[in-house]
Amino acid sequence: MRELPPTDVFLHRHLGPSPAEQEEMLRTLGVSSLEELVAKTIPAAIRTRDIPGLPSAVSEVQALRELAERAGKNQVLRSWLGLGYAGTITPPVILRNVLENPGWYTAYTPYQAEISQGRLEALLVYQTVIQELTGMSIANASLLDEGTAAAEAMTMAHRASDGARTVFFVDERNHPQVIDVVRTRALPLGITVRVGLAETVDLDGVFGGLVPYPCTDGAVVDFSGFAARAHDAKALVVATVDLLALSVLRPPGEWGADIVVGNSQRFGVPLGFGGPHAAFMATRTSFQRQMPGRLIGISKDSHGEPALRMALQTREQHIRRQKATSNICTAQVLLAVTAGFYAVWHGPEGLTRIAQRVHGFAKLVAAGAAEAGWKVGTAPFFDTVRIEAGPRRAELVTAALSRGINLRAHGDDVIVALDETVTEADAEELLQVLGCRQGLAALLGATDLAVPAAFARTTPFLRESVFHAHRSETEMLRFLHRLQVKDLALDASMIPLGSCTMKLNATTEMIPVTWPGFGALHPFAPPEQTAGYLQLFTELEGWLCAITGFDAVSLQPNAGSQGEYAGLLAIREYHASRGDGDRRTICLVPESAHGTNPASAVMAGMEVVVVACDTSGNVDLADLRAKAEAHGSRLSCLMVTYPSTHGVFEEAIGEICRVVHAHGGQVYMDGANMNAMVGLCRPGDIGADVCHLNLHKTFCIPHGGGGPGMGPIGVKSHLAPFLPGHPLVPQTSRTQLGAVSSAPWGSASILPISWAYIRMCGGDGLRQATSVAILTANYVAQRLGPHYPVLYRGTNGRVAHECILDLRPFKDCGVQVDDVAKRLMDYGFHAPTMSFPVAGTLMVEPTESEGKVELDRFCDAMIAIRQEIRDIEEGRVKAEDSALRHAPHTAADVTREDWGRPYTRQHAAFPTAHTRAHKYWPTVGRIDNAYGDRNLICSCDAWPETR
Amino acid sequence: MRELPPTDVFLHRHLGPSPAEQEEMLRTLGVSSLEELVAKTIPAAIRTRDIPGLPSAVSEVQALRELAERAGKNQVLRSWLGLGYAGTITPPVILRNVLENPGWYTAYTPYQAEISQGRLEALLVYQTVIQELTGMSIANASLLDEGTAAAEAMTMAHRASDGARTVFFVDERNHPQVIDVVRTRALPLGITVRVGLAETVDLDGVFGGLVPYPCTDGAVVDFSGFAARAHDAKALVVATVDLLALSVLRPPGEWGADIVVGNSQRFGVPLGFGGPHAAFMATRTSFQRQMPGRLIGISKDSHGEPALRMALQTREQHIRRQKATSNICTAQVLLAVTAGFYAVWHGPEGLTRIAQRVHGFAKLVAAGAAEAGWKVGTAPFFDTVRIEAGPRRAELVTAALSRGINLRAHGDDVIVALDETVTEADAEELLQVLGCRQGLAALLGATDLAVPAAFARTTPFLRESVFHAHRSETEMLRFLHRLQVKDLALDASMIPLGSCTMKLNATTEMIPVTWPGFGALHPFAPPEQTAGYLQLFTELEGWLCAITGFDAVSLQPNAGSQGEYAGLLAIREYHASRGDGDRRTICLVPESAHGTNPASAVMAGMEVVVVACDTSGNVDLADLRAKAEAHGSRLSCLMVTYPSTHGVFEEAIGEICRVVHAHGGQVYMDGANMNAMVGLCRPGDIGADVCHLNLHKTFCIPHGGGGPGMGPIGVKSHLAPFLPGHPLVPQTSRTQLGAVSSAPWGSASILPISWAYIRMCGGDGLRQATSVAILTANYVAQRLGPHYPVLYRGTNGRVAHECILDLRPFKDCGVQVDDVAKRLMDYGFHAPTMSFPVAGTLMVEPTESEGKVELDRFCDAMIAIRQEIRDIEEGRVKAEDSALRHAPHTAADVTREDWGRPYTRQHAAFPTAHTRAHKYWPTVGRIDNAYGDRNLICSCDAWPETR
Repeated sequence: MRELPPTDVFLHRHLGPSPAEQEEMLRTLGVSSLEELVAKTIPAAIRTRDIPGLPSAVSEVQALRELAERAGKNQVLRSWLGLGYAGTITPPVILRNVLENPGWYTAYTPYQAEISQGRLEALLVYQTVIQELTGMSIANASLLDEGTAAAEAMTMAHRASDGARTVFFVDERNHPQVIDVVRTRALPLGITVRVGLAETVDLDGVFGGLVPYPCTDGAVVDFSGFAARAHDAKALVVATVDLLALSVLRPPGEWGADIVVGNSQRFGVPLGFGGPHAAFMATRTSFQRQMPGRLIGISKDSHGEPALRMALQTREQHIRRQKATSNICTAQVLLAVTAGFYAVWHGPEGLTRIAQRVHGFAKLVAAGAAEAGWKVGTAPFFDTVRIEAGPRRAELVTAALSRGINLRAHGDDVIVALDETVTEADAEELLQVLGCRQGLAALLGATDLAVPAAFARTTPFLRESVFHAHRSETEMLRFLHRLQVKDLALDASMIPLGSCTMKLNATTEMIPVTWPGFGALHPFAPPEQTAGYLQLFTELEGWLCAITGFDAVSLQPNAGSQGEYAGLLAIREYHASRGDGDRRTICLVPESAHGTNPASAVMAGMEVVVVACDTSGNVDLADLRAKAEAHGSRLSCLMVTYPSTHGVFEEAIGEICRVVHAHGGQVYMDGANMNAMVGLCRPGDIGADVCHLNLHKTFCIPHGGGGPGMGPIGVKSHLAPFLPGHPLVPQTSRTQLGAVSSAPWGSASILPISWAYIRMCGGDGLRQATSVAILTANYVAQRLGPHYPVLYRGTNGRVAHECILDLRPFKDCGVQVDDVAKRLMDYGFHAPTMSFPVAGTLMVEPTESEGKVELDRFCDAMIAIRQEIRDIEEGRVKAEDSALRHAPHTAADVTREDWGRPYTRQHAAFPTAHTRAHKYWPTVGRIDNAYGDRNLICSCDAWPETR
Repeated sequence: MRELPPTDVFLHRHLGPSPAEQEEMLRTLGVSSLEELVAKTIPAAIRTRDIPGLPSAVSEVQALRELAERAGKNQVLRSWLGLGYAGTITPPVILRNVLENPGWYTAYTPYQAEISQGRLEALLVYQTVIQELTGMSIANASLLDEGTAAAEAMTMAHRASDGARTVFFVDERNHPQVIDVVRTRALPLGITVRVGLAETVDLDGVFGGLVPYPCTDGAVVDFSGFAARAHDAKALVVATVDLLALSVLRPPGEWGADIVVGNSQRFGVPLGFGGPHAAFMATRTSFQRQMPGRLIGISKDSHGEPALRMALQTREQHIRRQKATSNICTAQVLLAVTAGFYAVWHGPEGLTRIAQRVHGFAKLVAAGAAEAGWKVGTAPFFDTVRIEAGPRRAELVTAALSRGINLRAHGDDVIVALDETVTEADAEELLQVLGCRQGLAALLGATDLAVPAAFARTTPFLRESVFHAHRSETEMLRFLHRLQVKDLALDASMIPLGSCTMKLNATTEMIPVTWPGFGALHPFAPPEQTAGYLQLFTELEGWLCAITGFDAVSLQPNAGSQGEYAGLLAIREYHASRGDGDRRTICLVPESAHGTNPASAVMAGMEVVVVACDTSGNVDLADLRAKAEAHGSRLSCLMVTYPSTHGVFEEAIGEICRVVHAHGGQVYMDGANMNAMVGLCRPGDIGADVCHLNLHKTFCIPHGGGGPGMGPIGVKSHLAPFLPGHPLVPQTSRTQLGAVSSAPWGSASILPISWAYIRMCGGDGLRQATSVAILTANYVAQRLGPHYPVLYRGTNGRVAHECILDLRPFKDCGVQVDDVAKRLMDYGFHAPTMSFPVAGTLMVEPTESEGKVELDRFCDAMIAIRQEIRDIEEGRVKAEDSALRHAPHTAADVTREDWGRPYTRQHAAFPTAHTRAHKYWPTVGRIDNAYGDRNLICSCDAWPETR
């Protein structure tokens, strides 16, 4: 009712600047309205007026009510379905203080390590857990899911091989979705996947093999013979493992695995209907430089103190582009952190107890099944019992279901995969389902609960103090708190990351994620139990179609990079369906592109051809025409970011798309900058055929300190048949294309965040949010323009939703981008994106969620820093003596006795009134990256924890 | 199953020291087991072995499941019942980041103001909100509930009067429970409550009057005539108000109220079936020193910077004892903070919009009711419509109920009290319930939605910047975060408050509090809808009976002080029931008692006679005998704390009780030190007749930064008939004694915390927890004994659960308790209790939740401070130049250019390895209390907020 509108309207909470502040900022820009600003920024040819198909806005309470309704349509049963996903108890202290805490979930990827030491320490813990449980010497700080981790292991094994062999063996006893993701990945790379049994497979031409430990049916198999055989054949052995099982089973590092992958979900991370969870990869030291993903290592800071940061970054796609080891550019930090903390909370003896208990119950269930006359698999198992039910399979599954228990039908078998949540009462109930007349107590006497000696773990693990010091909740809470306060997150100040859209992650959007109705669902629960989720997916897909102007959306890719990859695969398959697959392999990529673009193209089996940009940062149309012409019928596609990575709405975008289409190519649009478009123009209208959306950039999923993300793709109808499929959950009206992620809808449990955002903004609100994002960027450009050259503007002198500040002029006086970035920490800010897309620059994206006061505070800091630079330029201070060079300043530094710097301690630490009132202290000085890379240490074994 | 026990067992998470650490600590003490230690500490005569009636322990998951079951038995309907409680929307950003955040809820009362500036600022905001909405010049930082606030206003008015008059007028249009609490309070004080109508009441002998604004039936009455008449009669006018209404109604300060009280619940605080909520009191400046409760004021620190702290503390019971203005010794800080933030979030225009909207809907409902032929009350109203239903009363209430709406039957009327949560759909539904054939749209045209001009507010309010600067969620989140990091809470370090038991507030205990099944219930919802709560109360009462050895428990008193008061009332009524009421008025109180004891005794109409203590800190038996003898048949009771406030299990306790009983007196036991007894001995067995329990000390309810608390009482069967009653919710098998709190079960929504604690520990676990609490205290005494004299030990040289460190010997060299307390902040600790029960001492209670590492860290800090004292004693440093005197050191202080102190900056700020690694910075220097009391400023009007 217009006269009495709800009072918990969301949009004005999402927007940083108040209406009055917007007016003021518009005046500063010399425009009279948001509409005028947008009109001057976005080319008229592509601007849209209305977007049909979007909901109208509802209040926060109403959005929560609707989400509760959907969650209520999901049934949370006991799902002992296995398949790499297990029920788990998230320790409440971790749930509340990490997963539900903006101090953890709003942080950015730890590129600025000096203000990320808390997360980095947590990730070091995670790496240590993975290393020691797998028995390997090094582990990364998480991958996206088990399937993609296995696929990454395959390509890693390929890289490590002589290159002549092209066959990858996959044991058929792996989880089906893992096999499928590996197959999908292998296809465009020309790798043949040979599925079979490790005991009998022919290793001719094989460069590596993937064996499951335990197998999908629960069997624990001794693969040491296979490993020996593989090594004789110079093939690498990749093991997919269950992390909990490894606390009682002999680790794969001890029976010959070279690479170990898996999912750490069951270490306290909610099932979430498939994600997000942190997968992992561990390997031998000799392969460490081949390993994809983030790696946290110990180095030292400018005072010689130990300090953490991401190691070996030169391996990554943002540096190596098409030569990168992988297109992965993020991780699942929040979930890896959770899993690591779970290990801290339980310690080795706790993990062992949990594993032994699950194993014990599985043994009793197996004994009960046998007692009841079922034929039970005879192989040793950990927590998963195989019942050879044959014709009685359906009967058994139904009997369990009638008591609220999901069991897995697998061939002629019924699989019972227990987990940490199982109780005595549950087990008794299972015995009843099985028709066993004996109870647990009776079975107990006759059952050996111990892990089979042949497979039992003998090597101790997690002996580092961190795994022994935080057993009481009080201690754990303080440990979490100590780490949290080391990090700068959105709860402290703006994080103006260009191309990363660090906007508000509203509490109302976040609350439903950990509701059991969303959080506690097994990804392979029967569809009748997941009606709420399916409704939400349909709605969200529809809205994303409306926003992008596409005809179909796949929610499967669980990171932006995966979206790129899936989108390129769709293009590849499209060409193939027209008999053009082998010919059309050229992917045009402008030189301004994010490094992930070429890396993804390579993964999709394409050859990258770089297109030049002109001096204004736009795609060089002539070069594009020439290259498109030159490759003609070999042209597969163009990858283009819009607005450009230079932060400009290129006027020529229509023409660019036409050129590519004219040569039979497809246009892939990188959605990184979608926050400048939502509600104002649409990729589908502009000429794109496919585009990925970073829900964690544009649609409010928090960055989680470096993941999770979500990268669904939208496509025009001709590409819809080539969206990802799934071996276990058929995706309607789609091709036989395989899965790109383990779970059918990727990280399903964070999709309610984006749903809530769209629902609470409505079409009009989204349009307004985008307009304000353009406003804040132009305001920053306007305020900082007199102090730092702003590179690249559109035809009317406007930037889009971000602006690039040129710091190259200061190089002469010895001031580097790093100096400014680190000095910003002293001012309480996270630096903008450094040296992308242009080396020596900072790219600022303030987003619509930052208010004028914060923007001014940031601009004032930048202007004050400009003055500090001027002091150097004009010879008053030497660069090497300056506060810029000594930044960031720790509390220990500014209280040292021998100060002797040409600036005061207070100028170092408290350069503004705001810092005097609300100081954030970096906990280490500037970190020496090269030192750590030369002396690679990636385990908390060597980390001095101070309690 | 013993062989496969649950792995989420709670007890070892609750206990700080691991089993190995316990062993080590026992060795340090020279005892071989916890049992031996307990045997040496607690007199054999009172030790119990087994406590029947307690549950066995369940795991955390199981406890949550059982609580969810109980919450599920509560029905959350739309309760438009009014009576001073209203549905509200807790802004999600406040819910998650304040109410559900241990950074806020585990903090202690802000006695150590230098490390509590965040909360203090939030409370200053609260005071400002109350002041400006009520139109008064000063407000306190919350009281317990509306009923007790009204009762406090009555006694305050009495104090302010000439003393000759003894009648307090209460307008009958107040809420019934408010009238009842006032009546209860008046009785023992000899005040006559005259209930009637303000328009006609005879003011002869009246010292004050209580008028409702609006009335319980919704009517807004002009009391200015009454105020004039009262003032002519030199009587004070107290108004009970609805805070939301005041954003659109003329404030009581403008029509003559002298004191204004009410409940701020509807400012974002969940209903919680009655609490906890923050009540308030505001008054004129001339009465400010008469006002009970906490008052936050602005003062300055040692650097002359503005700083906040509790003002005028000399009014309080811990100073003035039986001469105190009230026995209140805490507040509802967490809830006051929430309400204040609600006002920050909405600002004056938002509050007005909310009020106008509720008013508008009420107008439409009234119009619809009239349209449907109901007779509608004609008085102006705010949000509450009175329908004169007469014989159709039940029919209407039932019709509403059948659609899930609770309406209030009140005499012949049905009252519809709308609130912020009402939606258009709700209102339409109400119209249908009323049988109105027109919808809202039709009614809208014919209805004037404006507030009646005669009552409309014209004075602007909340113009301070804080109420205008935090409108976006991003800004609000940062504001909350900035305040939070200023405060030291249990998430950072131990808070070893003697007599305050700052133990773990486990997440599992806290999670259910904000579940709608507990949080969203109206206290006067029909009992059929609250079966889950009633079950939980019965269980908890039973467990508390078992733990205390009593026969009945009342959960009504919502603070320890209220428990004392209720317990003494029960004694008073007991004597009265035997015809002894007027004679038996002497209350014996040992001189070591907490100041609340004598203050409560006075409130209960008793005369306090102080009993001496001997040099060991024990009650002087001879003096007790003499006093009991002397007062003989006038003896009402003894109030005794056990173990004593000196932290010792007095051997003579049995004899003490016998002496009192022999003279016909009753024994009131103060439960402040119950954490030394639970599971090991029981007040009921020792000889007590009644005892209050501080659930926020002993049973894990967090301190909330200074409230909420809960103070239920247990009694022997002969006192059971004299437990508090309630006018709206009959308390079974109890006397006609009135209510002591507004809500029948006090702060019901935090009772699940204590329920969960007991359920997860079980009887054995509680016993073990208490034993470990005794262990940690003795360990600290042992370690610190060589450095600081430990006052008072039991016969075997053991302390109970706390120990007193004597700092008086250092007075000669100029070191005060304050110096040590403030210096502890530099070491990252909250000081122990200062100068209670003995001036010049520190009382340390580590609790069972602190581990050995933390205890050692604390002891090491104390020992290091002892060395700093020695430097002064031995003349190396002058007291006035020492780090002790300059403590606490802020970051600004240690980075000043002109340092010039005899110790280094690093010694000031980083005296230990722990502080170097994890520094907590006090944000202000030592605060000048006297300055602020001389220049009393209690509004954020004068507070310089820096954004």
